[in-house]
Amino acid sequence: MEQIFSYGQLRDFTRDVFLKMGCSAGHADLAATVLLSADLRGIDSHGVARLSGYVRLWEAGRINPTPDIRIVHETPSTAVVDGDGGLGLVVAPFAMQVAIDKAKIAGTGWVSVRHSNHFGIAGYHAMMALEQDMIGMAMTNASPLVAPTFATERMLGTNPIAVAIPAGEQPPFVADFATTTAANGKLEILQRKEQEAPEGWVQDKNGNPSTNPNELKSGGALLPLGGDREHGSHKGYCLGAIVDIFSAVLSGANYGPWAPPFVSFLPLPPDPVGKGLGHFFGAMRTDAFRPADEFKAHMDTWINRFRSAQTVPGEEKVLIPGDPEREMQALRLEAGIPILAPVVKDLGEVASKFKINF
Amino acid sequence: MEQIFSYGQLRDFTRDVFLKMGCSAGHADLAATVLLSADLRGIDSHGVARLSGYVRLWEAGRINPTPDIRIVHETPSTAVVDGDGGLGLVVAPFAMQVAIDKAKIAGTGWVSVRHSNHFGIAGYHAMMALEQDMIGMAMTNASPLVAPTFATERMLGTNPIAVAIPAGEQPPFVADFATTTAANGKLEILQRKEQEAPEGWVQDKNGNPSTNPNELKSGGALLPLGGDREHGSHKGYCLGAIVDIFSAVLSGANYGPWAPPFVSFLPLPPDPVGKGLGHFFGAMRTDAFRPADEFKAHMDTWINRFRSAQTVPGEEKVLIPGDPEREMQALRLEAGIPILAPVVKDLGEVASKFKINF
Repeated sequence: MEQIFSYGQLRDFTRDVFLKMGCSAGHADLAATVLLSADLRGIDSHGVARLSGYVRLWEAGRINPTPDIRIVHETPSTAVVDGDGGLGLVVAPFAMQVAIDKAKIAGTGWVSVRHSNHFGIAGYHAMMALEQDMIGMAMTNASPLVAPTFATERMLGTNPIAVAIPAGEQPPFVADFATTTAANGKLEILQRKEQEAPEGWVQDKNGNPSTNPNELKSGGALLPLGGDREHGSHKGYCLGAIVDIFSAVLSGANYGPWAPPFVSFLPLPPDPVGKGLGHFFGAMRTDAFRPADEFKAHMDTWINRFRSAQTVPGEEKVLIPGDPEREMQALRLEAGIPILAPVVKDLGEVASKFKINF
Repeated sequence: MEQIFSYGQLRDFTRDVFLKMGCSAGHADLAATVLLSADLRGIDSHGVARLSGYVRLWEAGRINPTPDIRIVHETPSTAVVDGDGGLGLVVAPFAMQVAIDKAKIAGTGWVSVRHSNHFGIAGYHAMMALEQDMIGMAMTNASPLVAPTFATERMLGTNPIAVAIPAGEQPPFVADFATTTAANGKLEILQRKEQEAPEGWVQDKNGNPSTNPNELKSGGALLPLGGDREHGSHKGYCLGAIVDIFSAVLSGANYGPWAPPFVSFLPLPPDPVGKGLGHFFGAMRTDAFRPADEFKAHMDTWINRFRSAQTVPGEEKVLIPGDPEREMQALRLEAGIPILAPVVKDLGEVASKFKINF
């Protein structure tokens, strides 16, 4: 049912595919590293499993392999970056680096991005700030699959937010989550296992609660974090909306239901309100607030206190955001990355198409 | 069961109480305006109902009525403000103004605050940015009442986040929400009505799911947005943690379980890790990203599209964050503010204590 590959094998193969799409060596290398960081961290839905999706978008002319990524507007602490239709996997690190460079001088840097594409996992980009003793933030809008509270229409993407915060002796705090009750990848797992979804994950096309994991195929929608009004779905809707506005209304990308779909078989929405997808990045120097060593020592205290909190019966410990992904990465670098049979087949087809080894 | 007061009556009374506590005329006026904005917007738990709580904190020596609020560290886009133990109701507008002033020059401004107290509703402070065509953000940590996912201990406050975004013809987008499934005020309403809480709001002291709205009185806890792991409570926990770290670890306030309680009958936690409560504010000039008129026109498109989305059966329209509160404010300015009998009694006692009319 699954096959194990080494990180190096998958990374090199992915790089070769991006090279065949016409990306420069530098871009192909970076895009492969960003994409594979999802597999390493155990977010399987966002890694090589999506490689064929990027290829199909490229075939449909919706990805520019040789983009002129550039700053189109700036102030001391802000910039707007135009991704020129490039892979989000390379546009995003460019924009995050701009945020970091701004923060070095102004204390913080904030970059909104237009005309981009899917950027892999938000956490990768947020974590770029850590080695500079900065707090990093990354968010993006995405294909409309989510119904706001009280709506039947799919108006928002799963619009993830990542925040990475450096610590001292402790590993960093890294939160990275979709603003829906459950990400689409979790539904796909239930589909394969032919299991029902918990309540609060999806609704049918008429807006009725549903536990059918295939609901999205017949016009249903994912639900914002909270699930329904009584459980706070209006808060998840607010979060998804804020991500959409920061990523796309600030930058001049497509927002809400106009966000271009990731799957190439869906047409682009008519009458676009901007260019491509949007992202938003932030970097804050910790020493723009207090000495970095002091900040990191208090983060250690924070992390130690939370990790040692009394647990509910049946759970061993309270997790610090980033713990499970870091442990997964250590494991998979050592033992390899399991890839499901349908994904292996998919990658084999990509290999034949480009006449490269897999 | 309730009594109607005009906004002016309640505001003047509140101002007089703060004057009696020894606040300056300017501070008393501002604090009353901030506190009453909660009643106007329909967030009754955070308005005059809390006035006697502030008085008791002052009696316990935990509020400094004549604080020297000052910037203790700054860069072009950041500052740390020390509230000197003052009312959060006056410390917060000071700090938000610093963020706005920074944004005028650097494009954005970010201010972390230590040694403060409860600041009323987050939305008031975020909305200060709107008249400058800026996006405003406000968050705060608070009394520990919330158990992280898998924990039985109360480690976080309801840690609200507010984001205010200007529009053109449309009223602004104003999100303001606790990062828990339900705020404590909603539990208090159920207690008074002797009704059960929905699942996912609270757990008992051993970490078992509960529907008893009195659970917090016997060592239980509020739950992060999502309720349980299957419904995304780890995301609500991440949000609450991020608010705590930005508000208190960045500034040097008390974080996590060390956050000082709002109620004066609870002792301050031993071995404090900082000073007082913490807040975090942000201001972003919209024209630091694109021309303000262009941004606001696209916000109008965003708002119109979402407001006109197809609704689920039984609901008239999809709400834009801020709609219900704005409508409530218009109504209450006209028709007055209903105050529950126990709160009226409470305010009467405050009036007698200070020998002022009510």
